[in-house]
Amino acid sequence: MKNTIERPLDVLNNAKGKEVLVQLKNNRQMVGTLLAFDMHINIAIDNAKEILGDEKKNLGLIFLKGDSVIFISPANVVD
Amino acid sequence: MKNTIERPLDVLNNAKGKEVLVQLKNNRQMVGTLLAFDMHINIAIDNAKEILGDEKKNLGLIFLKGDSVIFISPANVVD
Amino acid sequence: MKNTIERPLDVLNNAKGKEVLVQLKNNRQMVGTLLAFDMHINIAIDNAKEILGDEKKNLGLIFLKGDSVIFISPANVVD
Amino acid sequence: MKNTIERPLDVLNNAKGKEVLVQLKNNRQMVGTLLAFDMHINIAIDNAKEILGDEKKNLGLIFLKGDSVIFISPANVVD
Amino acid sequence: MKNTIERPLDVLNNAKGKEVLVQLKNNRQMVGTLLAFDMHINIAIDNAKEILGDEKKNLGLIFLKGDSVIFISPANVVD
Amino acid sequence: MKNTIERPLDVLNNAKGKEVLVQLKNNRQMVGTLLAFDMHINIAIDNAKEILGDEKKNLGLIFLKGDSVIFISPANVVD
Amino acid sequence: MKNTIERPLDVLNNAKGKEVLVQLKNNRQMVGTLLAFDMHINIAIDNAKEILGDEKKNLGLIFLKGDSVIFISPANVVD
Repeated sequence: MKNTIERPLDVLNNAKGKEVLVQLKNNRQMVGTLLAFDMHINIAIDNAKEILGDEKKNLGLIFLKGDSVIFISPANVVD
Repeated sequence: MKNTIERPLDVLNNAKGKEVLVQLKNNRQMVGTLLAFDMHINIAIDNAKEILGDEKKNLGLIFLKGDSVIFISPANVVD
Repeated sequence: MKNTIERPLDVLNNAKGKEVLVQLKNNRQMVGTLLAFDMHINIAIDNAKEILGDEKKNLGLIFLKGDSVIFISPANVVD
Repeated sequence: MKNTIERPLDVLNNAKGKEVLVQLKNNRQMVGTLLAFDMHINIAIDNAKEILGDEKKNLGLIFLKGDSVIFISPANVVD
Repeated sequence: MKNTIERPLDVLNNAKGKEVLVQLKNNRQMVGTLLAFDMHINIAIDNAKEILGDEKKNLGLIFLKGDSVIFISPANVVD
Repeated sequence: MKNTIERPLDVLNNAKGKEVLVQLKNNRQMVGTLLAFDMHINIAIDNAKEILGDEKKNLGLIFLKGDSVIFISPANVVD
Repeated sequence: MKNTIERPLDVLNNAKGKEVLVQLKNNRQMVGTLLAFDMHINIAIDNAKEILGDEKKNLGLIFLKGDSVIFISPANVVD
């Protein structure tokens, strides 16, 4: 997969429709399916779950603003 | 619904006139009816209620500035 | 009134000359008459009063910078 | 005076040469004579005094950067 | 190597495909292979590991947003 | 001198080559000779001294980034 | 040397290839050889050492992002 990464946003392009972990500022974490993103790193996530310690809070479909994002990691899968 | 999400802002377009949960910085949360938004994610919400622990404070119609927004989630409904 | 809200700034347009509550960052709150606003959400407020717990401090006419604003709510009136 | 406020910056235009109170982030407050401002809300103040509890520290002429400003209030005078 | 550094981004250009240490705000640190970067210093890192005290948490491939970056240091190698 | 202040930056123009006090965010203070400034309020100061309580730390010539500046005050002199 | 400072960035131009002290936000300090800078004050430093109390941590070559910089001071030398 790493051969296809020419620009940082290619990581997100390749992750569309797949599970991602989103690390936000203030120690918030989300997991869910990446539906869309834009150049501000605003993202749409479906089946979003906020991770609160050992619990997950279901949020469903969310619009997440880019300026809260620290990093986005596609779920580890065998590739 | 997820088939119609091409861009992150489509989440907000689809939620116009519907109930949304807005997570703000500093642990503030609002619920209310999404009336309008712009590209700065400034939003107009009607029947806005600020969630303060177990209580809700009625705010009525509000203009909410985009730079305080972390995420916006349309209320979960059977679709 | 909600029928006339096409864009978020319409909330402020409709509130000109009326009482508003302005929530600022750092838990500051102001009330007063909205005289004018611009696209940075800089606002002019007359008869501004800063709410400090149970007390109000009269500030008269103020220029309030937009980057401190979290939300602006027109006073609830029967419409 | 409020009849002349079409835009927020008119508050500052009308206050040129007059005493103003400037509320800064981090609880700093300044008083002094407003000499000039620009669209970034950078301001020049003469006879500036920083208010520190019950004391005032004379700063004379200062250039104050706009991104520290929360609000600017012309001194209350009979108009 | 230092002869080839005409602009700051040349440090990152020279580090493509190599191990880097990324210091983030809020004391976060990442190590991994730099795949790509853009002018906002958004970066793609493969085999990313977050350093948490004495432990490392495997994150795999990540998109890291530039506004959290303090500095990026290519791993020290004999050159 | 105040007659010559048409714009806020005129305060800095008039202070070139003279002693200034620079108040920075996080309670840092610098004194020194203002050599140059630009529209971002980046400034060059010679014989810069950081004020740390009752002590001063000599820094010599420095480039100071504008986004840390709160205010700049030319030293009080009889004018 | 101060005769050659027309703009703030001239301080950095004159310091290329020389030792500099870089003060960062959050009390971080770096020393090292300034190789390059750009208009965002992103800088490349060789033989960078982070100063941690009485100790120095060798970082080698680093790319340092401009928005963490408070000031940059060329090392004091007899000029």
